[in-house]
Amino acid sequence: MDYVFSKGMGGVKSSAVREILKLTQGNTIISFAGGLPAEELFPLDAVRAAYDRVFLKGKGVLQYNLTEGFAPLREKIAERMALKNMRVTKDEIILTTGSQQSIDLMSRIYLDPGDVVLVENPTYLAALQVFHSRGVQIVAVESDANGMLLDDLASKLAQHKPKMVYVVPTFSNPTGRVWSLERRLGLLQACKANHVLILEDDPYGEVQFDRSETYPTIFSLDEHPHGSAVVYTSTFSKTVAPALRTGWVLGDPAVIAMLARAKQSADLHSSATDQQALYELLSCEEFSLDAHIALISSNYEERMRFMVELLRDPAFEGLTFREPKGGMFIWVELPEGMDAEVLMKLAVAQGVAFVPGSSFYAGEPRRNTLRMNYTHTDRETTVVGMERLKAALAQLAIGQA
Amino acid sequence: MDYVFSKGMGGVKSSAVREILKLTQGNTIISFAGGLPAEELFPLDAVRAAYDRVFLKGKGVLQYNLTEGFAPLREKIAERMALKNMRVTKDEIILTTGSQQSIDLMSRIYLDPGDVVLVENPTYLAALQVFHSRGVQIVAVESDANGMLLDDLASKLAQHKPKMVYVVPTFSNPTGRVWSLERRLGLLQACKANHVLILEDDPYGEVQFDRSETYPTIFSLDEHPHGSAVVYTSTFSKTVAPALRTGWVLGDPAVIAMLARAKQSADLHSSATDQQALYELLSCEEFSLDAHIALISSNYEERMRFMVELLRDPAFEGLTFREPKGGMFIWVELPEGMDAEVLMKLAVAQGVAFVPGSSFYAGEPRRNTLRMNYTHTDRETTVVGMERLKAALAQLAIGQA
Repeated sequence: MDYVFSKGMGGVKSSAVREILKLTQGNTIISFAGGLPAEELFPLDAVRAAYDRVFLKGKGVLQYNLTEGFAPLREKIAERMALKNMRVTKDEIILTTGSQQSIDLMSRIYLDPGDVVLVENPTYLAALQVFHSRGVQIVAVESDANGMLLDDLASKLAQHKPKMVYVVPTFSNPTGRVWSLERRLGLLQACKANHVLILEDDPYGEVQFDRSETYPTIFSLDEHPHGSAVVYTSTFSKTVAPALRTGWVLGDPAVIAMLARAKQSADLHSSATDQQALYELLSCEEFSLDAHIALISSNYEERMRFMVELLRDPAFEGLTFREPKGGMFIWVELPEGMDAEVLMKLAVAQGVAFVPGSSFYAGEPRRNTLRMNYTHTDRETTVVGMERLKAALAQLAIGQA
Repeated sequence: MDYVFSKGMGGVKSSAVREILKLTQGNTIISFAGGLPAEELFPLDAVRAAYDRVFLKGKGVLQYNLTEGFAPLREKIAERMALKNMRVTKDEIILTTGSQQSIDLMSRIYLDPGDVVLVENPTYLAALQVFHSRGVQIVAVESDANGMLLDDLASKLAQHKPKMVYVVPTFSNPTGRVWSLERRLGLLQACKANHVLILEDDPYGEVQFDRSETYPTIFSLDEHPHGSAVVYTSTFSKTVAPALRTGWVLGDPAVIAMLARAKQSADLHSSATDQQALYELLSCEEFSLDAHIALISSNYEERMRFMVELLRDPAFEGLTFREPKGGMFIWVELPEGMDAEVLMKLAVAQGVAFVPGSSFYAGEPRRNTLRMNYTHTDRETTVVGMERLKAALAQLAIGQA
């Protein structure tokens, strides 16, 4: 028979990253495209021991669990969040299948087709996909290295009457930028004055290179959680491992209750084995998540510095970028007039991949931008990949000359 | 601030079961309400060993995985499905966070607000929640012990032009009924003639008491999977354990591709640790899933017969029910005029719970119906629970006299 898919699915394109990852399944292509953590750093032994401790508790661990998620893990998360000045109880937390699901569930409970969402420009492409599939109108707010421009934000709040603002204020994907305190406070004040909800997505906040600096979350700057204008989400995907697919949302109890209803209908609950194992991991004496995060952060900083060093090769003259202070990505601008999608095709032919920046724009894209991931390749591979990128860039320059 | 939730969420009530489960969190209430498998039967040692084998494979097992799910597990599922005359390759399978997510994703990719879905009456209440939240119009087709009445189906296909029919044809929730072959073929023919997609939900099909009988899936009766009018979903929740939250969908490659796009936006992928552990479980020599399913089925049959015996006590005179041939539920009718929701309140006061049948109806409910689960309580507890139910019923009879 002929299948007639829903209209909403017309807005959901298979992501550029996904298509690229398919290209890179052959081993010969070196990928700076994905957002994959370094496998070498996964705390496999501790994770393995944690699962084993779960199963020693008896058969009950394999039963259905609460839609909100395993309560002791929510308590552990509440303890960790309090250290960042986000004071919630376990009842103001719901566990999700990673922060991607947090974004999706928030979209379900808060947005109707035709509603407006404001986003940074550029922003996380899979959030754009969620909003597209919901039939929501996405409006980009002009942004610089310090976050959204408050003037443009004010004018777009007035003009578009959005229901929600979606931001990744700390080590954003794709740009790696960190919002200044002034911009964080400015966004919060403007949204509170206009009764607009802020969805603060913070998957990378803990992967911070200079551990002496502090970047308060927007959630921590508001009253929390009761009546907060901010709903906060984070994940264990970057700090422990992605396979366990465990994220969480903090919010007002009314928001959490509504998320639980949506989640019940979406999948009843996320993996209870993974949630229980994470609880065991966070509770044991042999493993310190903070020490592990420090290890990851320091290792990623080295990788970042190494890639930056290679990018400073004369062959890359004309490319501009800013050294990120955390997270997993370097945002690179090619000279005006160069198209990163054209470069991408040449690069894949050379055996190296990245993500063209155009995928991350809500409105008109800046086609000379691209995102480079530095957390997944080792030094040797990075050197080879960058050589291939040089060759592709040289071809592009010749083609344009 | 005041939160303005999406209109869709207005249609999503917290389920009666969920509210009831909250009531039963105190240990004193005996619950025949949930759909929980017997914990004593969970293959904990084999599951524990399976996770351990996963972690022995190295750190790569903790990385992000494909949206479609761990490929070797999809291959294992394809092998199992072929034994039921459903011939698919791994590329015609997508893994989900349990069959609840299969229903939700199918709803996202195939239904727009205002579309019509036909359902059995009564049917699985959490499917009704999904359709409600999607803004879909739900139309109930009259059904008897053998499935949907084909005359009423024909008239509702003509009148409502539905996009999809949702059915649980084998040991349905809540009634435990099994569709006859004639009704299965009749539904398939009618849907093909009208270009209507069938979503066949089969979580209980393997929990079958008389192992000599065969109930072909509707998917197996159609051409499969290319161009099939049927999309099929099942789960490991009842046959292995619910905590692992792993279900699957079989369908035409075009349907699977669209589900993958929706799933990417919903949560990137489900737990990769659980999927890899299930693969190890199904691949090892120490554990036979077929033998385990035979064990569960025979144990559940005993429990069902025990509850049926107790229901034949003279104190329950006037109650009617049919012995199920598989699955987890007995569907009971009280004498006309009695209201199971009123009985429920008296029952909870006595310390026993069930699910009033009204929750399972798409249209006007039959208020004298209720669903009893027999798979979770042991004999002793079942006896006490049934005594409490007797007391509640006596109170109801006095109240109505």
